[in-house]
Amino acid sequence: MFKRCTIKAPFFEIGPKNYLYGDDVLDLALAADAASEKYKVDIIFTTPYTEIRRVKENTRFLHVFAPHMDPLKPGRGLADVLAEAVKAAGAEGVMLNHCEKPISLGTLKASILRADEAGLVSIVCADSIAEAGAVAKLNPNIIVPEPTELVGTGQTSDEEYVRASTEAVKSVNPEILVLQGAGIKCYSDVYRNIFAGADATGCSSGIAALPTREARNAMVDEMIRAVREAYDARLAQKGR
Amino acid sequence: MFKRCTIKAPFFEIGPKNYLYGDDVLDLALAADAASEKYKVDIIFTTPYTEIRRVKENTRFLHVFAPHMDPLKPGRGLADVLAEAVKAAGAEGVMLNHCEKPISLGTLKASILRADEAGLVSIVCADSIAEAGAVAKLNPNIIVPEPTELVGTGQTSDEEYVRASTEAVKSVNPEILVLQGAGIKCYSDVYRNIFAGADATGCSSGIAALPTREARNAMVDEMIRAVREAYDARLAQKGR
Amino acid sequence: MFKRCTIKAPFFEIGPKNYLYGDDVLDLALAADAASEKYKVDIIFTTPYTEIRRVKENTRFLHVFAPHMDPLKPGRGLADVLAEAVKAAGAEGVMLNHCEKPISLGTLKASILRADEAGLVSIVCADSIAEAGAVAKLNPNIIVPEPTELVGTGQTSDEEYVRASTEAVKSVNPEILVLQGAGIKCYSDVYRNIFAGADATGCSSGIAALPTREARNAMVDEMIRAVREAYDARLAQKGR
Amino acid sequence: MFKRCTIKAPFFEIGPKNYLYGDDVLDLALAADAASEKYKVDIIFTTPYTEIRRVKENTRFLHVFAPHMDPLKPGRGLADVLAEAVKAAGAEGVMLNHCEKPISLGTLKASILRADEAGLVSIVCADSIAEAGAVAKLNPNIIVPEPTELVGTGQTSDEEYVRASTEAVKSVNPEILVLQGAGIKCYSDVYRNIFAGADATGCSSGIAALPTREARNAMVDEMIRAVREAYDARLAQKGR
Repeated sequence: MFKRCTIKAPFFEIGPKNYLYGDDVLDLALAADAASEKYKVDIIFTTPYTEIRRVKENTRFLHVFAPHMDPLKPGRGLADVLAEAVKAAGAEGVMLNHCEKPISLGTLKASILRADEAGLVSIVCADSIAEAGAVAKLNPNIIVPEPTELVGTGQTSDEEYVRASTEAVKSVNPEILVLQGAGIKCYSDVYRNIFAGADATGCSSGIAALPTREARNAMVDEMIRAVREAYDARLAQKGR
Repeated sequence: MFKRCTIKAPFFEIGPKNYLYGDDVLDLALAADAASEKYKVDIIFTTPYTEIRRVKENTRFLHVFAPHMDPLKPGRGLADVLAEAVKAAGAEGVMLNHCEKPISLGTLKASILRADEAGLVSIVCADSIAEAGAVAKLNPNIIVPEPTELVGTGQTSDEEYVRASTEAVKSVNPEILVLQGAGIKCYSDVYRNIFAGADATGCSSGIAALPTREARNAMVDEMIRAVREAYDARLAQKGR
Repeated sequence: MFKRCTIKAPFFEIGPKNYLYGDDVLDLALAADAASEKYKVDIIFTTPYTEIRRVKENTRFLHVFAPHMDPLKPGRGLADVLAEAVKAAGAEGVMLNHCEKPISLGTLKASILRADEAGLVSIVCADSIAEAGAVAKLNPNIIVPEPTELVGTGQTSDEEYVRASTEAVKSVNPEILVLQGAGIKCYSDVYRNIFAGADATGCSSGIAALPTREARNAMVDEMIRAVREAYDARLAQKGR
Repeated sequence: MFKRCTIKAPFFEIGPKNYLYGDDVLDLALAADAASEKYKVDIIFTTPYTEIRRVKENTRFLHVFAPHMDPLKPGRGLADVLAEAVKAAGAEGVMLNHCEKPISLGTLKASILRADEAGLVSIVCADSIAEAGAVAKLNPNIIVPEPTELVGTGQTSDEEYVRASTEAVKSVNPEILVLQGAGIKCYSDVYRNIFAGADATGCSSGIAALPTREARNAMVDEMIRAVREAYDARLAQKGR
């Protein structure tokens, strides 16, 4: 766990993946930056490697993240992604073990240690409640427990999954932040997750696969607003 | 094979791999750019993804290449590297199947086709004479046949390897350029390869692992000068 | 290329993959063995590693093949599959680079050499006409060019694909045998391929995914009969 | 966790890896079988896939394990290793995530569930104390925590590593057995581990890389005797 992580609940993760490239990534980043300022919500912007520097140089509030990195140290490894290289380009953190880029347990542990060493925040994906608990033992900054094991079963409510997977992480280490994020498509998906107690939520295709810049920018604003409104409502309820 | 490739023999490939990162990559690129202009030698500069755009924006003569890409089309694939993304960042080509990033035959074929489609020059590594011939059947722009099968045998001269591997490629398709590059460390290594008939040669650790910027820049100048002088001597010899 | 390969055209490859396991694999092997004797057709039987020895010990005519192996030499590599180990268990050959087990070009070349060294026949899959030519440069005993690049295009006849992919292989090395095999489901699929000039064809799910032993055994007999009848018809036509 | 696992402390794991093949594997298995009977020590014998059935059919006391399996269900996957296939061949369990066959966290979780489902005991390797705790969250039958993070530091005693890694596992689930096994070379290595409180230990190259059958068989007898004597001494000490 990188100790100087400044990201605080409630926050939101946006990842254009490869739905967008080139100028479209920057456009989305600018919209996210504006929403972050407007709603006072921390946003992790996970961008293709090629856009890390440009996004960082052109935004003020975003926490720019790399989508992956390898655990190597400076040296060989032509196409490997080096911690120090993403850091030097402006990244503040790195996503690891996304279901589209799975890595072995040993590599995951080594990569989290490299992130700590290089001063990068680590956000690690897990595919179930059990995996979320396992990842927590490796001590990253943030865990994303995707609820694939419950999806479609109809047996357990969203609220129950949020509760159980959060508990699986926090019982191991309460300092780890939990991002609840599968299948987010609109304001109410975001609102429900944050109101239910998640530290954070996020969205990729629900934003990036929209066909126009206007639609993407509007969706970013809508979702970040949902974070703010749900969080404030949660605090208000608690306060009562 | 991307038809509008403008790289011409003699050329040289420089790859800092992960020996360098951040500003040191740009410094090396600037030195390479100057040498390219000074000696009128085309230089492929294979840079970590994070530096593609910066190197391209700050140089005039370099052919900037990505160290790898994946064959996916725009869409999912969080940490995959998209052809259109490296192109949009300023890359003119892509290296594929380097021994530090081996890919399956099917992926290699698909990646070469994606490069063609996206307008990227493809440079493909092979590990032996037989593999060089196999790769030639897939029709990339440039092939790098690393002579591992002969290294240390003492049975075959460097000139023989250059000849045999060049022949393995050109007999399949004479338009494919051949870069002879293993173990280049100094002026005379470069000179020998180019004088022996190679279209190109290149160097990674022999430049990038040098401890200071001054040493790296001097080595770049020395090697590019060797390309020019060896090539001119070859032409002169032919002309006689 | 292993020089003492005794497999001759026309032949047929049967692979139960993981559709079957345990005694069902042996049952299918026995049916194949009977059909091989009855129709005088060589059959490659590609079996899960665990059944290599049992199939070999209980059959007389089958050419038993492993579905994959790794290029390592005896030593470490806990779960790697060693050439000498599959040979000692009774395998006569090994399949490499199947689309369900793709390997890098360097590994493919090394594995073919290991097969030669250990006295194993190599059968290598390729995903297109271009790949078939590339694989031919690596000199295996048998190539399986799957016509994925033409499937569904409607532009090219089966006969044209058989001709072009066979030519892509034989023009590199006429001693390499060619197995034409995608999508074989019945007598007439087999007949058409062999009659069109293929050295061999084969079938996995078209046999192994049938629900009963009786259905599988009947299909094996039908397909091997088709090999024999098509080949004889081809010879007769030629003879005229 | 497969609930009907009959392996009990103290036990020992022997894995010939690829140091041995063919008849040599069977010879080693017979020696292990005799030692298991003689000293009343459970032995896991992890054998290449090709020898599972033969070892099982020719021994009486060994717990035969596969060195790896894939999480697929019956169907496609030509060269994948199916749980039901290793079970049908006689395997009682499966090793997962060995450092020579690392798998992703998601695949590891799925494979443990498949082992449970197919009735196979799961033994999972971890590369450090933190990983041992992480793996414990996935609930396998046995965990092997290799002490790579402490090796050579000189800061921590063997006894401390045994204690800390055992605690990392047992604090998550006390039913999980712990095998302490790196670098076992002789009687005293085995004795020390078992006496220090390990449920089990094991050996690969320390046995399998010995040059003759006689040396291997003698070493097996010596190590299994050490298990028995150390365990009895531990019990005696406790009883006092």
